[in-house]
Amino acid sequence: MTAPFQDWMKTVQAGMEQDLSSYLPAGDVVPAKLHAAMRYAVLDGGKRVRPLLVHAAGALTGADAAALSRAAAALEMIHAYSLVHDDMPCMDDDELRRGKPTVHVAFDEATALLVGDALQAQAFGVLAGVDSVPPQRLVGMLRLLADAAGSAGMCGGQAIDLDSVGLSLTLEQLERMHQLKTGALLRASVVLGALAGKELTQAELAALHAYSRAIGLAFQVVDDVLDATADSATLGKTAGKDAADNKPTYVSILGLEPSIALAEKLRQDAHAALAPFGEQALRLRELADLIVQRKA
Amino acid sequence: MTAPFQDWMKTVQAGMEQDLSSYLPAGDVVPAKLHAAMRYAVLDGGKRVRPLLVHAAGALTGADAAALSRAAAALEMIHAYSLVHDDMPCMDDDELRRGKPTVHVAFDEATALLVGDALQAQAFGVLAGVDSVPPQRLVGMLRLLADAAGSAGMCGGQAIDLDSVGLSLTLEQLERMHQLKTGALLRASVVLGALAGKELTQAELAALHAYSRAIGLAFQVVDDVLDATADSATLGKTAGKDAADNKPTYVSILGLEPSIALAEKLRQDAHAALAPFGEQALRLRELADLIVQRKA
Repeated sequence: MTAPFQDWMKTVQAGMEQDLSSYLPAGDVVPAKLHAAMRYAVLDGGKRVRPLLVHAAGALTGADAAALSRAAAALEMIHAYSLVHDDMPCMDDDELRRGKPTVHVAFDEATALLVGDALQAQAFGVLAGVDSVPPQRLVGMLRLLADAAGSAGMCGGQAIDLDSVGLSLTLEQLERMHQLKTGALLRASVVLGALAGKELTQAELAALHAYSRAIGLAFQVVDDVLDATADSATLGKTAGKDAADNKPTYVSILGLEPSIALAEKLRQDAHAALAPFGEQALRLRELADLIVQRKA
Repeated sequence: MTAPFQDWMKTVQAGMEQDLSSYLPAGDVVPAKLHAAMRYAVLDGGKRVRPLLVHAAGALTGADAAALSRAAAALEMIHAYSLVHDDMPCMDDDELRRGKPTVHVAFDEATALLVGDALQAQAFGVLAGVDSVPPQRLVGMLRLLADAAGSAGMCGGQAIDLDSVGLSLTLEQLERMHQLKTGALLRASVVLGALAGKELTQAELAALHAYSRAIGLAFQVVDDVLDATADSATLGKTAGKDAADNKPTYVSILGLEPSIALAEKLRQDAHAALAPFGEQALRLRELADLIVQRKA
């Protein structure tokens, strides 16, 4: 019998917390301040959407639990480092993240810079430590992570985002930016989770890309809706910041109700993309629902 | 007949410039500002000490040229990203690097942050693109790069350096800091260059570690001597900055003449470590000489 989604999610999240802790140096190992700050940035925070996607995709291919844990931790470390750097004064200048002071506030700016740098290296090291995947496929997975994290992925999206503050973007430009800024890492989560179990056919890869595209966009549309409607306490970060920063969002371009309708359509697209996988895709379907229906 | 050292060095440097350019996205590919800044940070600069070490070590094991090029480029990208981040206002706040305005001065701080982040990802991607090394060994090389770059290596040394500004360090503490801050990447250059050709025995690895330790320290001792004695125009960066920043250096702890003598002793240690390799180690010996005898 399959566990209810909430139970499965809590199990993955708790396991991830434990594994992330074990992949990070202890907080009293020299340099202690850096290590403590790395742990502060990664542990006890967030919904662990990327690890959940990794594990859900791993269920498609019967992937080994240890390989999934390392792939999930690598993606979460890349995500966590990007938040630390994005929050810095020279970027978004945010003081609150996941309900806690951001790293440069809790520590200092130089430490925040190094935390991000060290976490990125750690992410590649953790993924390269997978021992149950044939090395040839693992090298491909490492290349994929590098592409998703770099200038053709997350960093590139971040750069486009910076360049577009104060500009009026078209819907296509906004989508392109988000497909890099957050979409690349979400897609990598899905594909790496599946690859941890076996090589994928072109058709399987295309289906997972379609799913990832839909949930990646949905994730951002819902983020924009929540930024416009929820309060800071619920979000665990400063609400209304996009409008205050004059950033283009789905809500500012489409309006609130059409944005909510778009998120629902993308949820259905995600489900449709998973049709070929049948029952094995249960968790990926449930995650698409979670991403669209979340309140924070 | 073996080419004179200067000719060999120029050939490696020119090849590296060309290869680095080919491993970086063109400056007009979107996001164009980020890509232009990445190229600005990496191309046309520096002595390429790490690539030279990679190629010199590759000569020990008859490594394939394409594999050496990728390993060298990966190390140079990690090095270049660390310089971009180190120069930022929240770290060393330097305005001049390799005789040019630093990235955050020539572009802006947010771009400098992203340039470093994207270059680190690119470095792992470039190394993971090696196709002439058995995947199992390549995965080990990627792990080694991650260790050298992260909190147990370069970032860790940087953190210790930050923590020790204004403190009086012992010689051992200073050495420990530099063995992480710059030594880890120099050692990785030597070991990755050799691994690009074949697996290493424990004895070979130990000899290369001894060589790397000696040149890594020598490199730093000479840096400190030059910072205390050369002018900014010769160095291509701000001279006398360590003293002004109240940073502990070999010169401040040992004095100038004993520092010069230490560098010479380390050069001899490096030569001694290479004895088992015979003629194959010619370039590594010449590089030890270069590191100690350079004027900038």
